[in-house]
Amino acid sequence: MEPNESQLIADSLDRGKTDLPAQMSVDADELRADTTPTMRSVSSGIESILFRPMAVLDHGFIRVVDYMGDDGAVVQAARVSTGKGTRTVNTDQGLINYLMRNHHSTPFEMCELKVHVKLPIFVARQWIRHRTANVNEISARYSILDREFYIPETEILAAQNKDLKQGRSDEPINEEQALFVQELLRTDASRAYDDYEILLNTDSSGEIIDEDKDGIARELARMNLSLNFYTQWYWKIDLHNLLGFLALRTDSHAQYEIRVYADLLLEVVKLWVPLVYNSFAKYRVGGIGLSAAGKEAIKRMLQGQKVTREDVGMSAGEWRELLADFEIT
Amino acid sequence: MEPNESQLIADSLDRGKTDLPAQMSVDADELRADTTPTMRSVSSGIESILFRPMAVLDHGFIRVVDYMGDDGAVVQAARVSTGKGTRTVNTDQGLINYLMRNHHSTPFEMCELKVHVKLPIFVARQWIRHRTANVNEISARYSILDREFYIPETEILAAQNKDLKQGRSDEPINEEQALFVQELLRTDASRAYDDYEILLNTDSSGEIIDEDKDGIARELARMNLSLNFYTQWYWKIDLHNLLGFLALRTDSHAQYEIRVYADLLLEVVKLWVPLVYNSFAKYRVGGIGLSAAGKEAIKRMLQGQKVTREDVGMSAGEWRELLADFEIT
Amino acid sequence: MEPNESQLIADSLDRGKTDLPAQMSVDADELRADTTPTMRSVSSGIESILFRPMAVLDHGFIRVVDYMGDDGAVVQAARVSTGKGTRTVNTDQGLINYLMRNHHSTPFEMCELKVHVKLPIFVARQWIRHRTANVNEISARYSILDREFYIPETEILAAQNKDLKQGRSDEPINEEQALFVQELLRTDASRAYDDYEILLNTDSSGEIIDEDKDGIARELARMNLSLNFYTQWYWKIDLHNLLGFLALRTDSHAQYEIRVYADLLLEVVKLWVPLVYNSFAKYRVGGIGLSAAGKEAIKRMLQGQKVTREDVGMSAGEWRELLADFEIT
Amino acid sequence: MEPNESQLIADSLDRGKTDLPAQMSVDADELRADTTPTMRSVSSGIESILFRPMAVLDHGFIRVVDYMGDDGAVVQAARVSTGKGTRTVNTDQGLINYLMRNHHSTPFEMCELKVHVKLPIFVARQWIRHRTANVNEISARYSILDREFYIPETEILAAQNKDLKQGRSDEPINEEQALFVQELLRTDASRAYDDYEILLNTDSSGEIIDEDKDGIARELARMNLSLNFYTQWYWKIDLHNLLGFLALRTDSHAQYEIRVYADLLLEVVKLWVPLVYNSFAKYRVGGIGLSAAGKEAIKRMLQGQKVTREDVGMSAGEWRELLADFEIT
Repeated sequence: MEPNESQLIADSLDRGKTDLPAQMSVDADELRADTTPTMRSVSSGIESILFRPMAVLDHGFIRVVDYMGDDGAVVQAARVSTGKGTRTVNTDQGLINYLMRNHHSTPFEMCELKVHVKLPIFVARQWIRHRTANVNEISARYSILDREFYIPETEILAAQNKDLKQGRSDEPINEEQALFVQELLRTDASRAYDDYEILLNTDSSGEIIDEDKDGIARELARMNLSLNFYTQWYWKIDLHNLLGFLALRTDSHAQYEIRVYADLLLEVVKLWVPLVYNSFAKYRVGGIGLSAAGKEAIKRMLQGQKVTREDVGMSAGEWRELLADFEIT
Repeated sequence: MEPNESQLIADSLDRGKTDLPAQMSVDADELRADTTPTMRSVSSGIESILFRPMAVLDHGFIRVVDYMGDDGAVVQAARVSTGKGTRTVNTDQGLINYLMRNHHSTPFEMCELKVHVKLPIFVARQWIRHRTANVNEISARYSILDREFYIPETEILAAQNKDLKQGRSDEPINEEQALFVQELLRTDASRAYDDYEILLNTDSSGEIIDEDKDGIARELARMNLSLNFYTQWYWKIDLHNLLGFLALRTDSHAQYEIRVYADLLLEVVKLWVPLVYNSFAKYRVGGIGLSAAGKEAIKRMLQGQKVTREDVGMSAGEWRELLADFEIT
Repeated sequence: MEPNESQLIADSLDRGKTDLPAQMSVDADELRADTTPTMRSVSSGIESILFRPMAVLDHGFIRVVDYMGDDGAVVQAARVSTGKGTRTVNTDQGLINYLMRNHHSTPFEMCELKVHVKLPIFVARQWIRHRTANVNEISARYSILDREFYIPETEILAAQNKDLKQGRSDEPINEEQALFVQELLRTDASRAYDDYEILLNTDSSGEIIDEDKDGIARELARMNLSLNFYTQWYWKIDLHNLLGFLALRTDSHAQYEIRVYADLLLEVVKLWVPLVYNSFAKYRVGGIGLSAAGKEAIKRMLQGQKVTREDVGMSAGEWRELLADFEIT
Repeated sequence: MEPNESQLIADSLDRGKTDLPAQMSVDADELRADTTPTMRSVSSGIESILFRPMAVLDHGFIRVVDYMGDDGAVVQAARVSTGKGTRTVNTDQGLINYLMRNHHSTPFEMCELKVHVKLPIFVARQWIRHRTANVNEISARYSILDREFYIPETEILAAQNKDLKQGRSDEPINEEQALFVQELLRTDASRAYDDYEILLNTDSSGEIIDEDKDGIARELARMNLSLNFYTQWYWKIDLHNLLGFLALRTDSHAQYEIRVYADLLLEVVKLWVPLVYNSFAKYRVGGIGLSAAGKEAIKRMLQGQKVTREDVGMSAGEWRELLADFEIT
């Protein structure tokens, strides 16, 4: 493993070799064999995984296709802003920490990542809500989609979360029920795809099924597919917006099926721009925001005062959250 | 009908009363009864349809929810740019024509439209690709979707277009086949929804189906629904970007199922900002772009010269298009 | 005064009547006299100031020109997302608080504000960095700019801040020096404008100065003007991005000359969408972000432990900030 | 010269060596000496100019700092959209021509360019209006700007264009007047900078001028500088938006001082992505848009009919333009 390469990256690469079409690994090896000298900055960490398919869920993947910039590009952009006015000697890590802590965004916009992703359509529908990215998706008006659909593992099949209004419970349903759910999802998706072929009047090898029929256009037939079918796209985003995406989608409230993609992308960030990753982990992961009232309450408590939520004008919900955040009993 | 109200608007409003839930019309009437004086500019055309559901496809609709600005707002913004430097007296229509012809965008950004739309998911997936808009979509993580799916009318069920790589043929398939397609789509969607309820362990009245089971979370169960199920959203966009959306989606190459929404929105634009509509219809609809080579070819032809595609360096495809565009035989 | 109308709004309106060209007040009165009934939601607070010039700095102003939506529009958009899945009865204020606290952005994007602003060019250069807005600026390629430039009041003329790398000291320089600075700025700007007219060969009444000369084009002559000359624009932005702008520009680290515009716009928000204003004031103003390490430190302190910065791995700067934020001695 | 290297690039590089600070060439040589193998695609054309300062105007420059992707990246993104649905064998040039002709934008968004630019402030104010780019500009709140201002060459000093409402005449003013204009601009800018130093109470070597005075903060003093002073920034943009910028700013109606930057960037595009450049030159440069009425008029003329502007409902201005475009007499 590379110094920054996590177990998650290693496992996803391993699964990429065994669980994804063998041609993908062949193609990756071929692309990786072809190196060219460049004067641009090169991130050795991310080069180590370039083009290699990393498996996600049962048929999905992330492949890093291209990148621009490294930790140094962030530092360089920040230094053009401050010019000769600041004489403080800052290490690169110190400067990046400063930028992250103070929510400076433009220097992080100077790096770009491009990935090829295969993902279930219902995940793609959440993902695309992040508007500040560039996307080229496979078009089911041009192409016939593959017979590939997502079936959740039994251990992540859970009931609706009772406390929150969204999301699922931490506990999976029992195994018997879970197997039933899997079977039902599998049967429905299989039938949906069988009928997709009938609607197209074209089988999986591209042969016409019934010469006496016309079939309907691809743009029409696709509507019979369910939301767990896989789509794929090229997705390109700058580092600032990528971190925003990751902050939201690696959060424990994010849906599991998008979180696994986000978790893997976060490890890609670690390989690519390790100093930025350090800052992000330090200031954005596990941190919290305090309102003026929350800050006031904490200040008084530290001074040994007895504080009630009424003293600082907080709602019951906010107060409960505050006590929980600081494990105040 | 209002002066600018087209037959399409009138028909969609009529269908809204009969084909959509009656409550929608009741709600619209109530909202419309409540008028308040404002000092802002008011567009009487669009006020005439505010909140009223206009039916699209079999279960979809567009309802105009809010708007900002009118033709005058475009003119006013353009005039702040030119300030006291230009003394030409331009009519409003003349100025708007000038802006449209010369692809000025910022004055058209000064108007906003907000609509509530119900649409099949595969249409929503195309629609959302227009990134410069604001969207609040119903979330199937929070909510249980309705048993409403799109079944195309027989006359628009057609085979894949042979010449183009996408889209459908102009001719529908024969009626027998069309009825078969409809039946197949209906059966699959019904089963998908039945099983969605089983997965949720909740029936349409919100009752638990089997007390001994847990059901799975909404965010999981939704993956069994097919792409012809309806979703809905609030969609807000400025006039410049709306016109860009309409130019693409009212085009004959756009998929029929999104085109019907775009065609109706274009009529909304006509009611809202009639001068802008006139300019758009004049300069953007039915116009074409000519490359330098195409322009050179036409110029020479008008001078009576015999021109070949080699003379002007055009590809066979471009040349064919040029001859077709100007009906040159 | 309106219920939500602050002293700042009242003062700015008063100064608008006396310090700005009288024609502006005449125009505002005329526009305000013309009311029309609308079915859209109307915010009575913001209607009370529509079109009226509010003075900022020595020649600048903000005039609200149009708006779309009110507090209800935010609530309505949030409710479409959660649909029938949530049955909790939330007050509007409660729901808006929830959205603000959890950084939901799309419901706040459903409201728009359009203002006409006159501001010094160096302020405009900072302002335009907020990219998610629509702008129509007066063009000095078309128009001749007015002889209006900004001279700071003596009490806000201060030396460079020694601690920070940017910004100015809290203490003004002494009055004698301040008067000298004002005089120097005034003399240079006057000469710049005199020479601008000579370059244009056109005087302030539009007459040619020397019939034997050509003058140079406006787009060239403008380069002689200094950055304290005033420009003006129409600026339109949605409420979410406006709050982001205000969070940055009402901050004590923002430059005074942009902060006075931001402070006034924040009062406009209070008149327009009072519930959103309350939430913003509660959760965004005066709050702070805590890193995971900071949170850990506070948690331990509240449990009565002695904590050093090394214990939680904070830098000297962060530790100093943490102690200061909670007034820990 | 490289195969695609134009005379303009060669001249700008030459001027970069002689007219710009020698340190810039030294730095470039050092950066260029450091090459690293990469698996990413490399564009040899653009590598040949990486980091080398290309002079623009009297003190400005463009330096290419980084890039992502090449012609192949555009083709690859387009092919993921069409997937296995299209079997047509297209050359890369043919596919890129197709994308350009049909205004497909997303494949061109897959490439990024990052440049370091030094430019007069009035040019920067036009440039920044293109919002879909990332910018890190030197901040005059942190830094003291250099004594560098733009003085136009005599041959491009021209009077206001009489026909258009903006822009300058094609003919320069006479040399005597031009020399007068240069002298006036130079005198005013020099004094502005002298007084900027007095306001800062800091001379060009960073020494305090008068120990008994405070000076005012940088953020205040900068307002005395005129719009022809130089600023600099890192500017990063995707290829699609870059082409949009270039279409507008290489146009003959663009102001000369921004056009020279755009012209040079267009040559950079030619070195970087030569196939995309070919398509752009073919379909966007020198082409025109025809309204439906214009198309109808041309169609009839080609059929030998006598057509008047009334026949096709065109305004006098549009008709005049149409005749001029096709040199119809």
